[in-house]
Amino acid sequence: MTHKIAILGASGYTGAELVRLIAEHPNMEIAALSADRKAGMSMDQVFPHLRHMNLPTLCKIDEIDFSGIDLCFCALPHKTSQEVISALPKDLKIVDLSADFRLRDAQAYKKWYGNAHSALAEQDEAVYGLTEFYREDIKGARLVAGTGCNAATGQYALRPLISAGVIDLDDIILDLKCAVSGAGRSLKENLLHAELSEGYNAYAVGGTHRHLGEFDQEFSLLAGRPVQVQFTPHLVPANRGILATVYVKGDAQAIHDTLASAYAEEPFVQMLPMGEVPSTHHVRGSNYCHIGVTADRIKGRAIVIAALDNLTKGSSGQALQNANLMLGEEETTGLKMAPLFP
Amino acid sequence: MTHKIAILGASGYTGAELVRLIAEHPNMEIAALSADRKAGMSMDQVFPHLRHMNLPTLCKIDEIDFSGIDLCFCALPHKTSQEVISALPKDLKIVDLSADFRLRDAQAYKKWYGNAHSALAEQDEAVYGLTEFYREDIKGARLVAGTGCNAATGQYALRPLISAGVIDLDDIILDLKCAVSGAGRSLKENLLHAELSEGYNAYAVGGTHRHLGEFDQEFSLLAGRPVQVQFTPHLVPANRGILATVYVKGDAQAIHDTLASAYAEEPFVQMLPMGEVPSTHHVRGSNYCHIGVTADRIKGRAIVIAALDNLTKGSSGQALQNANLMLGEEETTGLKMAPLFP
Amino acid sequence: MTHKIAILGASGYTGAELVRLIAEHPNMEIAALSADRKAGMSMDQVFPHLRHMNLPTLCKIDEIDFSGIDLCFCALPHKTSQEVISALPKDLKIVDLSADFRLRDAQAYKKWYGNAHSALAEQDEAVYGLTEFYREDIKGARLVAGTGCNAATGQYALRPLISAGVIDLDDIILDLKCAVSGAGRSLKENLLHAELSEGYNAYAVGGTHRHLGEFDQEFSLLAGRPVQVQFTPHLVPANRGILATVYVKGDAQAIHDTLASAYAEEPFVQMLPMGEVPSTHHVRGSNYCHIGVTADRIKGRAIVIAALDNLTKGSSGQALQNANLMLGEEETTGLKMAPLFP
Amino acid sequence: MTHKIAILGASGYTGAELVRLIAEHPNMEIAALSADRKAGMSMDQVFPHLRHMNLPTLCKIDEIDFSGIDLCFCALPHKTSQEVISALPKDLKIVDLSADFRLRDAQAYKKWYGNAHSALAEQDEAVYGLTEFYREDIKGARLVAGTGCNAATGQYALRPLISAGVIDLDDIILDLKCAVSGAGRSLKENLLHAELSEGYNAYAVGGTHRHLGEFDQEFSLLAGRPVQVQFTPHLVPANRGILATVYVKGDAQAIHDTLASAYAEEPFVQMLPMGEVPSTHHVRGSNYCHIGVTADRIKGRAIVIAALDNLTKGSSGQALQNANLMLGEEETTGLKMAPLFP
Repeated sequence: MTHKIAILGASGYTGAELVRLIAEHPNMEIAALSADRKAGMSMDQVFPHLRHMNLPTLCKIDEIDFSGIDLCFCALPHKTSQEVISALPKDLKIVDLSADFRLRDAQAYKKWYGNAHSALAEQDEAVYGLTEFYREDIKGARLVAGTGCNAATGQYALRPLISAGVIDLDDIILDLKCAVSGAGRSLKENLLHAELSEGYNAYAVGGTHRHLGEFDQEFSLLAGRPVQVQFTPHLVPANRGILATVYVKGDAQAIHDTLASAYAEEPFVQMLPMGEVPSTHHVRGSNYCHIGVTADRIKGRAIVIAALDNLTKGSSGQALQNANLMLGEEETTGLKMAPLFP
Repeated sequence: MTHKIAILGASGYTGAELVRLIAEHPNMEIAALSADRKAGMSMDQVFPHLRHMNLPTLCKIDEIDFSGIDLCFCALPHKTSQEVISALPKDLKIVDLSADFRLRDAQAYKKWYGNAHSALAEQDEAVYGLTEFYREDIKGARLVAGTGCNAATGQYALRPLISAGVIDLDDIILDLKCAVSGAGRSLKENLLHAELSEGYNAYAVGGTHRHLGEFDQEFSLLAGRPVQVQFTPHLVPANRGILATVYVKGDAQAIHDTLASAYAEEPFVQMLPMGEVPSTHHVRGSNYCHIGVTADRIKGRAIVIAALDNLTKGSSGQALQNANLMLGEEETTGLKMAPLFP
Repeated sequence: MTHKIAILGASGYTGAELVRLIAEHPNMEIAALSADRKAGMSMDQVFPHLRHMNLPTLCKIDEIDFSGIDLCFCALPHKTSQEVISALPKDLKIVDLSADFRLRDAQAYKKWYGNAHSALAEQDEAVYGLTEFYREDIKGARLVAGTGCNAATGQYALRPLISAGVIDLDDIILDLKCAVSGAGRSLKENLLHAELSEGYNAYAVGGTHRHLGEFDQEFSLLAGRPVQVQFTPHLVPANRGILATVYVKGDAQAIHDTLASAYAEEPFVQMLPMGEVPSTHHVRGSNYCHIGVTADRIKGRAIVIAALDNLTKGSSGQALQNANLMLGEEETTGLKMAPLFP
Repeated sequence: MTHKIAILGASGYTGAELVRLIAEHPNMEIAALSADRKAGMSMDQVFPHLRHMNLPTLCKIDEIDFSGIDLCFCALPHKTSQEVISALPKDLKIVDLSADFRLRDAQAYKKWYGNAHSALAEQDEAVYGLTEFYREDIKGARLVAGTGCNAATGQYALRPLISAGVIDLDDIILDLKCAVSGAGRSLKENLLHAELSEGYNAYAVGGTHRHLGEFDQEFSLLAGRPVQVQFTPHLVPANRGILATVYVKGDAQAIHDTLASAYAEEPFVQMLPMGEVPSTHHVRGSNYCHIGVTADRIKGRAIVIAALDNLTKGSSGQALQNANLMLGEEETTGLKMAPLFP
């Protein structure tokens, strides 16, 4: 049986990535693609790399007949997303890629995103989309909230450690190196090739990045008490990839054992042998996350490093993985392609 | 039925690309991987991006039992390749990715490659592997010679034009812009990131690049008389991609019509509308070739531009396309993945 | 004696490059910097790499007292430039970096730029700024029109050959590879890192690039009859550099001799030995232009390759070289820094 | 008066950078350039970007008449450097760029570099070359040991803080992002463009990087008791630049005040306003170091970020700064060029 799929906001990078992935899926068919300002254009005008595909013309959202849609990916900007989703049919399965339904607490949402949430019923209904940790809930969910790409990377490194109590909860530092596609296809001066290539810098320093809302929510929930981490993202001259270098206090071997055990059966999370380090080079374009652990020379300290592709495992690949669960498909279908190297 | 596949020379980029592609193939199984100097290592030590796959350990060629192999890809350096292939079982199907069997004439081989050919029987037997133009021969072939990646790109732009007689055969200029993976995984100073990134230059200028041997052979054969083109490759700071800017004399509309007609039914060669230009960005990691035609302001001149991924359509993707034909599989199986963008 | 310098349009890349260069000039002092939309900001807010310098605050043009200015660099967009310059004091020395005064013929200007020229008196007065060929005129000029960066590169390769009559004037092809800073600091989708890095493409194909107006004007003037060249620019993933691969018909040795002789005494144009090729890597950040000549395997054909930095020799360095002449300074002052490699 | 300069090991990146910088120095003249394996070649064969300069032919070290040399830069690999320097005239002023004389303790040297030190007298005599902190000693020194580039970056961020006692000495984490030229011009697979561009990874994780020897020595000396930091370097796809993100415990305002006060009169170390972050983009090719401080959302924690160019301020620029002091020149001569951006 073929599931009919709609993608709202198909003219951005996560939209294009969804199309790339779904093209490989034997049981999904793209039935509608929306892009508000580009409605009426063909997809290959917006993304010439999809020229070989036979895709629906971009349309406005209200031109879509959702009665024929089995699942809708929503790749719209946050705030727009909640407005659109609250107006969609109440029985439509939705995977949202925006930030709008990641935070369960309306106050937390307002604190990090600045505006009051306008779709509280859906916020309440939404399941957090970090597949490996919310798998059962996602299977039964109608609305799944895709995680932040940075938030996903950090959580893969830390969740089992917090659950197992093998690290000091009050001294966790995440130093992230992020590729530029995470910022989307937006026209900002610092995203120009001439401004970005050949150099790098931190941004949102000091605990101001919005993905901290997810870390706070999830880590505190796991620990059963408030947990706050330090998190410094850096923009590096590459298109895809997030590398999280996580500094923790705890026994490196126990940390490695805990992670290895937690991910032993996971198809997409790969533990490296003790002392080996992952690289974003080796996950590019794939749904895999690689994790390594190294003991520091200072006793009682360890470095956990996680690498994934922000557009795939960090966003659209995760979304498809969740959609598979929601539609009763095998979780890994369409997602097992190898990374592109070099 | 699953075909058992061997890849000789699996530690180079074309070897890794074959593994990436075959991983998606429903009817192929990698049964053996050789790498002379790295025999005994696991593939993920050599290519960590393949860590998630369950692959045979790298071995020496003579450790492989070819009786259980249905088809062998040979991704060895030229000269080595002819020695190895002439010693393989005479009934083993082989796709060679080296330069060793591309030239039909032993003198031409010696002229361009410097050494006398040591496997003349196989040279005689080999079919030239440009699928779209040798499809029927390839179906029945035992040994197929993969083309040069530059040679493939130029031929896609020019073969139908030469056959149709719509361009001046004495005034063809190919200006190629080549990504660095075409040079392989070899340790050369000019391939270092610090030497290559942020700049670019021509190389093998003046008609000295070896792929000219293929152009001379194929174009002269098509024209029924000697044809020599000018060909200047440039090394640009990117990992994958070849862009051929081809300057020809002829009527642009006739040129576009000829190419559009020639490739109308081809699954992997995509003609752009008149006046549009392809980009290597839009074929990365895929088996597609995009071709555009533009009339110059000077009457009677046109520019034909072709773009493909040197490792996929220019090498390993082409090899798999040919292997599909040789094994009675659908030609496109395992090869329809969309390009990776961004 | 210190010359007081004003730079109009200081918030763009050519403006910043002028500041970088003038900082090294012993006899120039930056007295005023304008940037219309960023007036009131300090230069280090706009260009943090200039943080260590003590520079005037950005202002609006009409806030500048030009009576104290010895020379004004105008780095404004074309069309704006002619409006501003026609309103400046008539005795103010000006080096314009825009396209507005490059073409001597008002009709040609309108053809290539779309709008009627609004400063015909200044257009008439302006001297074309290709220093090596207009040196004497520039010394006495009040208004010098900086050349297009692509136009400069092509002319260094071709002018002496056209003058000497050693090449076929009806069959000249310039295939240019251009770095992205030539497009300025403008917010365009195709200039984003995620869109540009790791790939490349032609643009303005078929004879539509505006710098052709300069080629037509200058080459026809040199030849004493109309000369039209083919010119295809390509955008490559690098920040600085232009590489012109020029295909000509003529004797390679005569071509090399002609160029070597023409540039023998030039401080900034360096001829490479016969058969060697230049690279943009080796001129980055400098005012040097490297030129190489190679004979093709086809008798009577040669490839001339020229490399320069579009922001330095192709624009701001050229402008300073001209300003030196206009102010009676040594032509090379402030311009002899070595390229930055790697 | 012009100082005669020799550069040993001129065929590497730090050698070429010295030539680039000295070319701008009014009182220095390059009298000799050595490169063991490339002796007999001209410098422009090894570094074509220096083609415009009139430089001595590369020679072997024993071909140099050191009696005419005022100061010798030694840009040789460690271990080789100590052997060469111990054989040079005992009254020759030397700035060594290798690791050989950075560590004062022979045991520490052996621990970090693996071999016993063979030039103990010179090790004893050498002054540590971090100019801003050893200025007076360097003025009178005969042999100055240039610092590691990572070690320099971390020390600029931390030395004043350790001296002032405003941070917790037992909880300092340095997460460094390093460009590839720091690895030199060596032929290693992971330095190839195809392996490095578009991705990034940590290396020498867990406290194994040799520059830790310098941190341990200098920080413990400043603190008057053993201090050990955590230090994780990362290789990012850029050619020049080091960004140190330093996580400390202390009051952010006190930290900013301490650094601002320490560097108030320094010509090359620039403090950014509280909360602003530096970027390697803004120091490329220059001798400047930019430092920013931001308070974390977690009370009592701060992030200090320092950026410099590894080849300039981190190596050859530092070396020239020290040479100026040793020769009685103004410290900043030849070093005030602006960064290259973009």
